[in-house]
Amino acid sequence: MKKYNVAVVGAMGVVGREMVKTLEQRNFPVNKLKPLDIPANKGKEVTFNGEKFLVEVAEKGAFTDVDIAIFSAGGDASLALAPTAAEEGAIVVDNSSAWRMDPEVPLVIPEVNPQDLDWNKGIIANPNCSTIQMLVALKPLHDEFNIKRVVVSTYQAVSGSGQKAIEELDQQAKDYANGKPLTNGVYPHQIAFNALPHIDVFLEDGYTKEEMKMVNETHKMLDKNIQVSPTAVRIPVYRCHSESINIETEKEMDLEKAIKLLEASPGIKVVDDPANNSYPMAIDVKGKDDVYVGRLRKDPSVKNGLNMWVVADNLRKGAALNAVQIAETLIKRNLV
Amino acid sequence: MKKYNVAVVGAMGVVGREMVKTLEQRNFPVNKLKPLDIPANKGKEVTFNGEKFLVEVAEKGAFTDVDIAIFSAGGDASLALAPTAAEEGAIVVDNSSAWRMDPEVPLVIPEVNPQDLDWNKGIIANPNCSTIQMLVALKPLHDEFNIKRVVVSTYQAVSGSGQKAIEELDQQAKDYANGKPLTNGVYPHQIAFNALPHIDVFLEDGYTKEEMKMVNETHKMLDKNIQVSPTAVRIPVYRCHSESINIETEKEMDLEKAIKLLEASPGIKVVDDPANNSYPMAIDVKGKDDVYVGRLRKDPSVKNGLNMWVVADNLRKGAALNAVQIAETLIKRNLV
Repeated sequence: MKKYNVAVVGAMGVVGREMVKTLEQRNFPVNKLKPLDIPANKGKEVTFNGEKFLVEVAEKGAFTDVDIAIFSAGGDASLALAPTAAEEGAIVVDNSSAWRMDPEVPLVIPEVNPQDLDWNKGIIANPNCSTIQMLVALKPLHDEFNIKRVVVSTYQAVSGSGQKAIEELDQQAKDYANGKPLTNGVYPHQIAFNALPHIDVFLEDGYTKEEMKMVNETHKMLDKNIQVSPTAVRIPVYRCHSESINIETEKEMDLEKAIKLLEASPGIKVVDDPANNSYPMAIDVKGKDDVYVGRLRKDPSVKNGLNMWVVADNLRKGAALNAVQIAETLIKRNLV
Repeated sequence: MKKYNVAVVGAMGVVGREMVKTLEQRNFPVNKLKPLDIPANKGKEVTFNGEKFLVEVAEKGAFTDVDIAIFSAGGDASLALAPTAAEEGAIVVDNSSAWRMDPEVPLVIPEVNPQDLDWNKGIIANPNCSTIQMLVALKPLHDEFNIKRVVVSTYQAVSGSGQKAIEELDQQAKDYANGKPLTNGVYPHQIAFNALPHIDVFLEDGYTKEEMKMVNETHKMLDKNIQVSPTAVRIPVYRCHSESINIETEKEMDLEKAIKLLEASPGIKVVDDPANNSYPMAIDVKGKDDVYVGRLRKDPSVKNGLNMWVVADNLRKGAALNAVQIAETLIKRNLV
C-alpha cells in the first residue's frame, strides 16, 4: 500500500492535535508526519504512532516533500500559505473558512459530495462544523424526500472557538465553584451558565457569519434550492455541537422510511428511544466519529415536516475527522 | 384602596418564594399574607414587607378567609385543592399545568388575553413558562402581520425543574471544578456541560409534554390557527429561558415596523444592537420583569419570515410575575 507524507499545519492547536490523533486512530497510510506551526512552537514534540516528531515552521519551502497538507491554522494562515503548499506539490485540505466559497475550490463532506473532489486544483476546503453534521443527517433525507426548507437552531460547544475558549469556560466554572467573580476575554460575555446567540461576526443583515456559512455551504454542497434559516448559539458545553433541525420536504414525509434511511446511511447513528430517555447528547458523542440523530418526529405544523435533534463531535466529524476522510477519499479516487 | 387576603400555596418552593417576593416588589394590595405548604413545612417563617408570617398547612378550610389564592404546589396539589379553595370563596390563580386545558378555566397572560379573565369560575390557570415569553413577544406581531406558523427551539434553565435541579447543576459544577465524578438524580442525565432535548415526559407522537404545552396553550390564548413546531431543550443555565423563534406571517413582513411594534408593547424590551455585542442573555435578564427580544432579522427562506431571540426570567414572567399580574388584572377588572 502506498504511503504518504502528511503535513499538519497548526499541529499544536486544538483541531491540529485532533488531526494527528485521527490520522493515527484511522491507520492513515502515513509515510512521514510533518507537524508544522508558528515559529513560537518550533521544536515542540508531537507523538504519532509512538514516534516523536518535532514541530517545524509552517512557511514557504516546507511542503516540497509533502503529499497531503491538512491545514488548521486559521483563515489568514490558509490564505497566505495554502497556494504555496499546492504549488510545492502538496494537495491541501483546509479547515478554515478562507477558501470554502471560492468557486475554484471544492468544499466536501465525503458522505455528501465526494465527486466534487475530482475537480480540485490543489486546494480542498473542509466545511464549517455546524454545516457538516447538519448535511450528513440531511443528505439521505434530501435524496428521498427533496428538502425545500430547513430551520435550524444550534447549541454549540466552546471548543469550536479553540483552546482558549475551553480554558475560559473551565476557569469560569472553577471560579463559580469557589465563589469568585467570573471574568471573560475570549467571548464578549460570560459563557458559563449562559447562552450566547452570537457565533463569529455579525453581518449587515443581522445574521452572523456562522449562520451564513450554514446557508451558503448547504447550497454549495447539497442543493442551491434548499432554503436555510439558521440561528447559531453558543452554550456552556465543552465538546460536541447539538442542533434542533426542522425540515419541510416536497415529497410526502414518511417517518418510518426516514428513520430506516438514516439508519442505513454511512456516518450516521440513530439514537431515538425516548421511552428509555435515550437521545443524542453532547456528553455521549464526545470522541465519536458518527453524526448522531434522534428525537425524530413528524412536524404536523406544515404539509411534509420533520423535526430532529442532531449531535456530533465538532472537533472530530466537525473538523479533524472530515478532513482526514477527505484525504482518504482522495486516495480512494486516485487523486493524490 | 381595597386590600386583599392573599394565600400563596407552595410558599416554600422556588416559585412560591418568588411569588411572595413579587407581591412585595409590586406593592400588591395585601391585607394579610397566608403562606401555605405541606405539613412538613408548617410553622416555617416567611418574611413579607418586613413582617414574619408562619406557614400553615394547605388543606380544606384554609381558604375561608382568603380572597386570592396563588397556587404553585404542583399539579396534584392543584387538582386536589384548587376547587376546594374556590368553593371556600378564594379566586385561584394556579401555576401548575393541571387546569390549563380545561375549557372551563381561562388561561391568561395579561398582555395577551386579559379579557378571558371575565369568564372565570373561580380558577384561573397560569401558562407554562416557555409559552408565556413566546406569546408576549408574538402577540403584537400577530396583531399586525397575522402569524401562520412558528418554529421554536428552547434553551431552558434548570430552575424550571425546581430547587433540587438548581442544586444538582450546582453540585455538578462544583464536582467538576474539584475533579470529582459528576452524579445526577433530578435529570436522567448529567446537565452540566450538556444539552438535554428532553423536558417533561414523552408522548406517543415523539413530542414531550413541554413541547405540546407550547402548541396547545398558543391555540388557547392567542389563535388556534397558528401552527407551532416546538423543540424543548434543557441547558446548563440556572435562570431565564432563551428561545430561538422563527415565524411566518400572512401579511408582508416589515422588519422596521416589527421592531417599532415590539418596542411599543407592554412587557417587552428590545435589546438588539449586534454591532455592540448587545442581545438578550440569560445572565442579564435574571430578576427582570420584561420579556427581552433581540436578534430580529428577516428570514429570506420563506415569503414573510422573521427570526428572533427571546429571553425571559422563567421564575418571574414565566411563573410568579405572570400569576401576580393576573391577580392585579382581576382587581383592575373588578373580578375579585
